Amino acid sequence: MRQPAHGGNLAWAAALAGCPPDAILDFSASISPLGPPNSAIAAIASAFGDIKHYPDPNYSELRLALSHFHQLPYEWILPGNGSAELLTLIGRELAQLAATLLITPAFGDYYRTLAAYKAKVLECPLSLVIGQESSVISSLSLFLDNGQKTKDKGLLLNNPHNPTGKLFSRDSILPYLEQFALVVVDEAFMDFVPPNEEQSLIPVVQEYANLVILRSLTKFYSLPGLRLGYAIAHPDSLSKWQQWRDPWPVNTLAVAAAIAALQDREFQQQTWTWLPPARKELFQGLAKIPGLQPQASAVNFLLVESQKSTLQLQQELLKHHQILIRDCLSFKELGDRFFRVAVREEFDNQRLLTALSEWGVGTGEMGRWGDGEMG
Amino acid sequence: MRQPAHGGNLAWAAALAGCPPDAILDFSASISPLGPPNSAIAAIASAFGDIKHYPDPNYSELRLALSHFHQLPYEWILPGNGSAELLTLIGRELAQLAATLLITPAFGDYYRTLAAYKAKVLECPLSLVIGQESSVISSLSLFLDNGQKTKDKGLLLNNPHNPTGKLFSRDSILPYLEQFALVVVDEAFMDFVPPNEEQSLIPVVQEYANLVILRSLTKFYSLPGLRLGYAIAHPDSLSKWQQWRDPWPVNTLAVAAAIAALQDREFQQQTWTWLPPARKELFQGLAKIPGLQPQASAVNFLLVESQKSTLQLQQELLKHHQILIRDCLSFKELGDRFFRVAVREEFDNQRLLTALSEWGVGTGEMGRWGDGEMG
Repeated sequence: MRQPAHGGNLAWAAALAGCPPDAILDFSASISPLGPPNSAIAAIASAFGDIKHYPDPNYSELRLALSHFHQLPYEWILPGNGSAELLTLIGRELAQLAATLLITPAFGDYYRTLAAYKAKVLECPLSLVIGQESSVISSLSLFLDNGQKTKDKGLLLNNPHNPTGKLFSRDSILPYLEQFALVVVDEAFMDFVPPNEEQSLIPVVQEYANLVILRSLTKFYSLPGLRLGYAIAHPDSLSKWQQWRDPWPVNTLAVAAAIAALQDREFQQQTWTWLPPARKELFQGLAKIPGLQPQASAVNFLLVESQKSTLQLQQELLKHHQILIRDCLSFKELGDRFFRVAVREEFDNQRLLTALSEWGVGTGEMGRWGDGEMG
Repeated sequence: MRQPAHGGNLAWAAALAGCPPDAILDFSASISPLGPPNSAIAAIASAFGDIKHYPDPNYSELRLALSHFHQLPYEWILPGNGSAELLTLIGRELAQLAATLLITPAFGDYYRTLAAYKAKVLECPLSLVIGQESSVISSLSLFLDNGQKTKDKGLLLNNPHNPTGKLFSRDSILPYLEQFALVVVDEAFMDFVPPNEEQSLIPVVQEYANLVILRSLTKFYSLPGLRLGYAIAHPDSLSKWQQWRDPWPVNTLAVAAAIAALQDREFQQQTWTWLPPARKELFQGLAKIPGLQPQASAVNFLLVESQKSTLQLQQELLKHHQILIRDCLSFKELGDRFFRVAVREEFDNQRLLTALSEWGVGTGEMGRWGDGEMG
């Protein structure tokens, strides 16, 4: 069985673990463990009667809910079948530019969407462009100053950054809006940053016709099965992209769930209360395991450097603990010495820490690696 | 309020009728009145637990169900977010050819998808290409023989044809597979034709690498809100198109509903039992109304020619009867003298016939048109 290119393929994991998919403790998909909100499930059940009608092609009700949520005019918001669908449309836009700059390691689907339209990709390593303060992208211009123009290029980045979990400050991104032809900021994980710390570009979007923000309801509300994301950009861009896709991309039940989730302030607060201490505890637990080095993160996942092969570790955790971690092979700069784990609730995080300790990934302690199972 | 380009926009209709969308008796969307099947609703409710996981990017379970349903190898089937999503991908493929031939009047979304990728469109009127027997496309070659090659062109047609409801015989389409570079047959309504009469090209698809068949679960199972269609074509084509779209186009709940619907043989039989007599009765009722002339149809809708403006008629039926019929303005060859109605259950069909009689559309009888409301 081929390993999936993206995280979250439970069918593959379950086959390897020899258990049903439901029994897998999934740290690979960076999804909140608190959801889906009950309000969203109830809204889906209430919308069964609407299945027999086509969705409203304007998605007016959903756009109004998003407009209210973000305090933005309705026309600046376009819902999509997951932010991945919108990213694909934007890939076509980016392909019309001379090149698109990616900060690497970058989410694998960025490469797919750019390749789908034969966009030229320029890769800029994250380690080169972050300043002394890790929240500032400070040397992107220096990277490009090597005789390269930016006015004919696009910039595609995510903030917070996946897989490192780094949060870039809004101010450190703003200068690039003046320099690049098109700046696409994927804010799929921004909801996890509490309101007083978040660095979304939404407050400035109406000032920049060349800015596109992608948001997702997938991660924060645990709704990856529903496919619900949205783009925030100049209405002219959104209208153009709508002509490139079918008229009813978003499922009626996903619409109902999204509207309920956006209004669920209690669920949102609960998430901001749960995450910081849970992440801190998981970080500290990982840091104590010899051979593992977690990186500081602003969101609901942690990138961990490992002295041992993480592919091997992934398989052992599946076979012996039914735990799935995210290897980083799809991030080609990271390879086999990094893995990513979602922050889950305390009990589950503890199960992960115990399993990792048992398999002794450090150099000083071979643990079970030494007993011949390493193959 | 702008009138929607496509049928089924209940929000627009409800505003005009001054009632909630639920109160509209909708003849505009060609959706079966019998569904959704209870089996599909139950399957959705059972799948709530899966919302928090990403869909399987291979959609293995759904493709196996479709494979079993059509007795076709798994690799020849690609599910999509409604057949409209797949049509859009195929539009990109068609745009690489010298031109694509459409048989007109043609479904409006065909023009959108071809325009999205700047494909060149050639229009061939249906009236020119159907033979003495209405089920045979006999003179398409004659139409093109005017010095035009076919080997560098695509052919996009639907069978049964929308909006006329005509069913073309399989044998009359086969010759075009030898002549055109790519033949796309949209069989969105084929399920409505009973098994002993249907003319699907699925049985021959493995013999033609240049044949693409589009199918939909929307109409037959009354699931337009869920977005569920699939393409049947050579595996190499399907793999290529998958690279042009996001990895998880189909919603988890739609997958669950689709699998249940495909297995619901009782619902399928019920539809084939209901449709022929209901359609016959509606046809005869319409034919009796002076000024209206319905056309023979193999499926669940009837195209009706009217001596009066159907746009006016549409508005009056909405305002006075909360009944929505489909005007044909989006089919530019038909204009304001045609409308389309879905076949519904007997009681509803009778309501439509009564309302149409009351508004007296015939020349010999002005009915309420004469009382100044015509504007």
